[in-house]
Amino acid sequence: MTQNTILSDETICAISTAAGVGGIAVIRVSGSHAIAISDKIFKPLKSGKSIAEMDGNTIQFGRIVNNKNEIIDEVLISLFRNPHSFTGEDVVEIGCHGSLFIQQEILKLLIENGCSMAKAGEFTQRAFLNGKMDLSQAEAVADLIASNSKAAHRIALNQMRGGFSEELTRLRMKLLDFTSLVELELDFADHEELEFADRSELQSLANEIEQKINQLTNSFSVGNAIKNGVPVAIVGETNAGKSTLLNQLIGEEKAIVSDIHGTTRDVIEDTISIDGILFRFIDTAGIRETTDTIENLGIKRTYQMIEKAQIILWIIDASTTKSFVPTTLSIPKDKKLIIVFNKTDKTDISHLSTTFTHCFISAKNNIGIDTLQRLLIEASNINEKALEDVTISNARHYESLLHALDAIRRVQDGLRVGLSGELMSMDLRECINHLGAITGGALATDEVLGNIFSKFCIGK
Amino acid sequence: MTQNTILSDETICAISTAAGVGGIAVIRVSGSHAIAISDKIFKPLKSGKSIAEMDGNTIQFGRIVNNKNEIIDEVLISLFRNPHSFTGEDVVEIGCHGSLFIQQEILKLLIENGCSMAKAGEFTQRAFLNGKMDLSQAEAVADLIASNSKAAHRIALNQMRGGFSEELTRLRMKLLDFTSLVELELDFADHEELEFADRSELQSLANEIEQKINQLTNSFSVGNAIKNGVPVAIVGETNAGKSTLLNQLIGEEKAIVSDIHGTTRDVIEDTISIDGILFRFIDTAGIRETTDTIENLGIKRTYQMIEKAQIILWIIDASTTKSFVPTTLSIPKDKKLIIVFNKTDKTDISHLSTTFTHCFISAKNNIGIDTLQRLLIEASNINEKALEDVTISNARHYESLLHALDAIRRVQDGLRVGLSGELMSMDLRECINHLGAITGGALATDEVLGNIFSKFCIGK
Repeated sequence: MTQNTILSDETICAISTAAGVGGIAVIRVSGSHAIAISDKIFKPLKSGKSIAEMDGNTIQFGRIVNNKNEIIDEVLISLFRNPHSFTGEDVVEIGCHGSLFIQQEILKLLIENGCSMAKAGEFTQRAFLNGKMDLSQAEAVADLIASNSKAAHRIALNQMRGGFSEELTRLRMKLLDFTSLVELELDFADHEELEFADRSELQSLANEIEQKINQLTNSFSVGNAIKNGVPVAIVGETNAGKSTLLNQLIGEEKAIVSDIHGTTRDVIEDTISIDGILFRFIDTAGIRETTDTIENLGIKRTYQMIEKAQIILWIIDASTTKSFVPTTLSIPKDKKLIIVFNKTDKTDISHLSTTFTHCFISAKNNIGIDTLQRLLIEASNINEKALEDVTISNARHYESLLHALDAIRRVQDGLRVGLSGELMSMDLRECINHLGAITGGALATDEVLGNIFSKFCIGK
Repeated sequence: MTQNTILSDETICAISTAAGVGGIAVIRVSGSHAIAISDKIFKPLKSGKSIAEMDGNTIQFGRIVNNKNEIIDEVLISLFRNPHSFTGEDVVEIGCHGSLFIQQEILKLLIENGCSMAKAGEFTQRAFLNGKMDLSQAEAVADLIASNSKAAHRIALNQMRGGFSEELTRLRMKLLDFTSLVELELDFADHEELEFADRSELQSLANEIEQKINQLTNSFSVGNAIKNGVPVAIVGETNAGKSTLLNQLIGEEKAIVSDIHGTTRDVIEDTISIDGILFRFIDTAGIRETTDTIENLGIKRTYQMIEKAQIILWIIDASTTKSFVPTTLSIPKDKKLIIVFNKTDKTDISHLSTTFTHCFISAKNNIGIDTLQRLLIEASNINEKALEDVTISNARHYESLLHALDAIRRVQDGLRVGLSGELMSMDLRECINHLGAITGGALATDEVLGNIFSKFCIGK
C-alpha cells in the first residue's frame, strides 16, 4: 500500500484517558518497540514474567520503576500483539493510578527510553495506515468520542463499523475498471472503432453512482443537524419569557448529565438533547442578556437569527396578547415556525388561536414543556426513518461527494454527446479520486491526513 | 473477619477514569454478579466467547449492546477473577470509547441489569473489607491518586505497599497478647500473687511502642508539609517584585505540567513543585492583587501570614535599599527567613549584606532563581534522609497515634506505680484500639469507614 511510505517507525505513547485526576488512567504505547521499551520500566512480581513473555490479550500486575529502581506505581499491563490491536502494531496499555504526577512520570520514563509523544489522533492514523480501518471509519472514531446525543452516536458508530464506505469502495472499483478500459482505448488511437469499455454499461454505472451520491448528500443536512445540533432560534418580546423557557429546557438536561459527571456544563451550555436529538440554540447568550424588545433588536438581526435556524420558536406572552398573526415577519418556507404561548397559567387561553403550529405553556411552572419538546422533535425532521437513511454527517465527506457528483455528471453528459475517451478519462479520474478521498483509497497526502487527524484528541 | 458483616453483596459499577471526554474510558464492575451482569450487555465476536468463559487476566474485544440489540460501542473487556483482583471480588473492566454519551449509556445499562452505582471509594473499601489491604494502605490509594509531587507520591506509595502498618500490627499483636494475660489474671483475682504477664517484658514492649510512635509522630510535620506543600509566605514592599517572582516560580512549573496535560492550571494555581518538593504560597492571591505596602498591610496581617508559614521569603528592592536589618518584625525561631534582594540587575550589589540567609536575584530577568530554589529546598528540611524517615502524612493516623501514645504512657506510668491489672487493662485496650484504628485491625464502624472512603473519588 502506498500509505506505508508515510507510516513512521517511531514507537509512540500518550495518556488515552481523559485529562485530569481519576481513579485510574491508561497510558497507551504503540509501535515496533512498544514491548521492549515498556519492559525497560516494568518489573513483574517474582512469580511474573516480562511483557515480551506475555501472551497477547492478557493482563499482568506489576510495577513501573525508574532507572534508579524506585517504584513509580503499581500497574496493570495489557498486551495486544501485532496485528491484533487497535493500531495493528504491538500495543502495551499501562493502567496506572490516576494521579497527574504518576501519569507524567510514566510518560517521561517511556520517552526517556525511546518513545515519542503521540500526536493528536496518531493511534487512529496508524490504525488507518496499517489497514485496520479506512479513512471514513477513522474519522468516525473522533465523531464517536465527541458524540453527545443518541443520534450522533448512532451515525458515528455506524460509520466506524463500515457504514457506507463498503458500497462507495465497490462503486469506485467498478469505475476504476471502466476507466482503465477507456484509457486502454487511447493506446489504440489509430483504431477509432475500438471500444473496450461498453458505453451503455458505463452509462448505467454512472447513473448508479449519481443516484448513490445523491442519496448520501441529501442526508447530509439531517446528518449535520444530528452531529452539531438542530439550529433553533428563540424570538419574542422581552417579557415573553424566553430565558425562563431556555433555562427550563436546559435545566433538565444538565441535571441528567451532572448526576453522573458533574463536569460537562461548559460543553452543553447552549445545546439540549431531547429524546436523543440535539438542539442548538442560536445566539441564546445574546437573547438571555438582552433587554431589547424584538422591535428594538431590529428586523435585520432577527432575520439573521432566523436564517441560521431550522426551527423558530416564537414566544408570546399569552397574558397580554389577545390573538396572534405574525405579519411583521415573513418566515422562509424551509423553516419550521412554532408559536409558543407562554404564561398561560395567568390567563384564559380559549380565545387564543393561530393557524401556525403552536402550543400553550407556562415556562415558569413547567407546564406544557413536554408538548413543546414533542413539537421540536417533529420539526427537527429527525425520526427513525431519517436516522436509518442518514449516513453522512462529515463536512469533508460531503464536499468530496459534491465534487464526485459534479464529475460523474460530466461523465454522463460526455456519454450523451459522445465525448472523446481522452476527455472522459479526466472526468472519470476526478470522480474516482474524490470518492477515494472519503475512504482514503486514493493516495492521501501527509497534509490531508495531518489535517484530519489533528482534530482528534491526543491518546486516540 | 468481623468486617465481613458490613460488606455489601451488591455488584457495583462506576467510571474509573477521569471525568470528561477522552480517547478511552474505563468502567469498572465489581461483585459476585459482575460477570453475569456484564455478560447480559456484552456481545463477543462470532469467534469469541462470553465473559463467563474467559480466563482471568485476559482481554476480549467485542460490543456492548442494549436490550434492543442496538450496538452502544465496541469495547475491550478485561476480566479479573476473584480473588485475583483489586477488590478481591470478580471484576470486569469495560474499556470503551471516551465519549460522555457512551460512558453514560454503558453505566445505565449496567444499572438496569442489576448493578448499583459505586459510592466514592467503594472499590477500595471492598479491597479493605476483603482483606486485600489494610486501612492505612487503602487510604494511601487516595493519597497516591491525589499526590502531585515526587515526595508526596513516595510517601503514599510506600504506605500503600505496606509501609509502617506491618510493624504497627506486629507491636499491636504483641500488646494484645500481654493484655489477654493481664485480663486472665483478673479471672484469678483470688490469687493476687498470680502474674501471667511478665511485667518487665511488658515494660520493655511499652517502651518499644512509645519509641516507635514517637518516631512516627515526629515525622508528621514533614509528612504533612510533603503532602500539602511547605507553607511559604512572601512579604515585602509593593514594588519589591513579589508578584513577578511568584509568576517566575509558578510559570516554569505550569509550563511543564501543561505541556502534557493542559488542564491542571486551577489545581496548581498557588503551589509549586521544585525538585519534587511541593511549596504552597500562603495568601498569594491577596499579595498579587494588593497594592498596599507592607506597612499598610499592617503588622497584624503580616504576622498572621508568617505564623502559618514555615518559610518566609522577604523580598527587598535592591535598587532602592542600601543595607538591610529586619528590625520591624521579629521572626519566630521555628521559621526560616530568606532575604531575597531583587532587581539586582539595576544596581551594584557589593555593599548589600545581611546576617540572614539571602540571595541576589532579578525576578524579571530570571537571574538567581535557581539559587533561590536551592535555598527554598534547604529551608524545607525535606531531604533524602527526612524522606526515608517520613511515614506519616495522614492526619487521621497522626491523631490515632497521639491517642495511642497517651495510652501507652499511662501504661508505663501504671507499671511504674504498680497499678492494678484492671485499670492497666483499660489503658492497654485503649492503646490497642487506637493502633488498630490506623490499620483497620480494630473493628471499624460503618461511620468511620464511610468517613474515610467518602474522601475518595468515585470509581476507585
